[in-house]
Amino acid sequence: MARMDAVSKQTAAKIEKLAESVMRSVKGGKNPFVEIPIRSLANVHFDARKGIVQLGKQRQKRYFFNVAMAKKFMQTFLVSDACKELVESGKTTSIRDLYYITKHTIGDTRQNTFEEQDESDPIIEDLEVALDALREELHLFASRKGSMVGPITIRDTGDTIDLRRMGSGGWAVPSIVEENVIQFVRHEARYILLIEKDAVWTRFNEDKFWKRERCIILQGGGQPPRGVRRLVQRLHHELELPVYVLVDNDPWGFYIYSVMKQGSINLAYESMRMAVPQARFVGLSSFDKDKYKLPANVAIKMDDGDVSRAKQMLAYPWFKDARWQREIQEMVRSGMKFELEALSRRGISFITEEYLPRKLKEKDWLA
Amino acid sequence: MARMDAVSKQTAAKIEKLAESVMRSVKGGKNPFVEIPIRSLANVHFDARKGIVQLGKQRQKRYFFNVAMAKKFMQTFLVSDACKELVESGKTTSIRDLYYITKHTIGDTRQNTFEEQDESDPIIEDLEVALDALREELHLFASRKGSMVGPITIRDTGDTIDLRRMGSGGWAVPSIVEENVIQFVRHEARYILLIEKDAVWTRFNEDKFWKRERCIILQGGGQPPRGVRRLVQRLHHELELPVYVLVDNDPWGFYIYSVMKQGSINLAYESMRMAVPQARFVGLSSFDKDKYKLPANVAIKMDDGDVSRAKQMLAYPWFKDARWQREIQEMVRSGMKFELEALSRRGISFITEEYLPRKLKEKDWLA
Repeated sequence: MARMDAVSKQTAAKIEKLAESVMRSVKGGKNPFVEIPIRSLANVHFDARKGIVQLGKQRQKRYFFNVAMAKKFMQTFLVSDACKELVESGKTTSIRDLYYITKHTIGDTRQNTFEEQDESDPIIEDLEVALDALREELHLFASRKGSMVGPITIRDTGDTIDLRRMGSGGWAVPSIVEENVIQFVRHEARYILLIEKDAVWTRFNEDKFWKRERCIILQGGGQPPRGVRRLVQRLHHELELPVYVLVDNDPWGFYIYSVMKQGSINLAYESMRMAVPQARFVGLSSFDKDKYKLPANVAIKMDDGDVSRAKQMLAYPWFKDARWQREIQEMVRSGMKFELEALSRRGISFITEEYLPRKLKEKDWLA
Repeated sequence: MARMDAVSKQTAAKIEKLAESVMRSVKGGKNPFVEIPIRSLANVHFDARKGIVQLGKQRQKRYFFNVAMAKKFMQTFLVSDACKELVESGKTTSIRDLYYITKHTIGDTRQNTFEEQDESDPIIEDLEVALDALREELHLFASRKGSMVGPITIRDTGDTIDLRRMGSGGWAVPSIVEENVIQFVRHEARYILLIEKDAVWTRFNEDKFWKRERCIILQGGGQPPRGVRRLVQRLHHELELPVYVLVDNDPWGFYIYSVMKQGSINLAYESMRMAVPQARFVGLSSFDKDKYKLPANVAIKMDDGDVSRAKQMLAYPWFKDARWQREIQEMVRSGMKFELEALSRRGISFITEEYLPRKLKEKDWLA
């Protein structure tokens, strides 16, 4: 067994505790069960005070001696056993890998422990909520994308990396960025800028915006993956830096912002560890076409899907603020959307030299 | 004008030469034209000696005084003018951005220079072949993904980066990796390993395979983007390192290998700059299920699309070699495919500790 860090010890202890409670039931002649918070829409709500989408208090007991539940009960322990091994050995793996690792044919039967990955994935989510541990703490990683540079030195699995000297490429953000993997060593950053598109991030990096403005710039290649979201949250909390989100002016861009801000309905149980309720939207806004004099020919007509998606957003409790209502209504009214790249019509570095500096100076953001 | 490096000077000169030839025609009272190699399937062939997919010699003249060609002629010069500006200013941008930059409404008409990006993209490709310059040399970047670590120090836009100390994340591979951007400073690598999947790359990085084996490991998040392919080619040629490709055992994995090896039909004119005809396939092979004792339950049944794709591959001239024929025929015969992750059934580090070391030791690859 590799020497475990504090985070890993805690996670291993949580898994052991779960197993012990089951063993106690068995010894006591009782029907063993695992208690798992319910992850259905009915048990999800928006906590307006905290500003995040959260899981409610409904829980479900999964019994061993129950025909409908026995297989899932067995699967839960197969997965938790595999995770405990990962945690103890200091290794990490993908959820695809975990599916293969835990897939066995049972005895002489033709029954497999898992048929497809869509059986093991929900078990992982069950375990996350049951143990109150992110999958990253269970040593499971998601697919990764995204890069980061800025006036900060980090430590990543023992290597000290100066993100001020990462060239045009940047540091590739891994999927697991928990405290035991990534530490922040020192920094001079004033804020964090999360950029939707890698192409726009490249513009900001090439123009050394982060150096001039003293900020950390990250991109997640569209909807940021878990690693990027978690890292932004850690930077925000631990370094007390404000977070600005720069996305396209379309419902998808608004959605990306909203997931970063209050979490998503599907993964409501992770909001506490992933969301930044104070994140600020710095555009592109539907009013920017006038403010920043964009010619009409760079507008893109919204399709029916866009319009209905935007109308749905009007009803979201976290977009109930009058300014957000005005913002989304303007998008619906105009029927037009704009990409960040449309700003290049005003000049290739307009976005780094005029657009964003003015936005920040005028505090022209939505929150 | 920023001071230009040698590569940029050469590219700017190529654009100027194109413009000058047109100006000469105008002054001489002739109908100006641009000569562009034809990029249709009929003009693509496999050069068995060089081992790459190549563009043939057919060329097309695009005239200014021709109703059908005048708009494209104008567009060609709009794009080349924008590229010249990029090259001279030392800035780079995306092809999406270029579309916005060159989109104008002409005079008082309602005619736009470009309506959609699908009009400007082919013009870029025209220009690449007409000038014999990669789009990266025109300062245009594609979307980027992928990461790299290994026993090598590089210089990226002036920053010296030690890829032996990049933690779990790695260096994010940019889209433009030409000599003027990325230089190789020093290395102790014995070979290059290109891995299809980011999750598998993470396993190799976590197990420090690159340290033990002295190799450079790269991943491109599925089909490697242009930056990763070009970088592999440069590493191969300039450092004289062999390239090994590790992909799934399915037609898509074979295709990824084949594009890395001899280029793709769509972008045949770039094979010379992107392909590595000597690249070696280290699996997963259809025969590995027996050789590495994979249980039957990790096999995935091929669907009709897989089967017909595999059968198509049997006819590719670059898969005519008897060993490749045997390989693909075995896949078709069994009707089964395997993911790299299936090896985890034999243990989480089986792939880094047993599978690949044995493959390399036994020289059990296809080329």
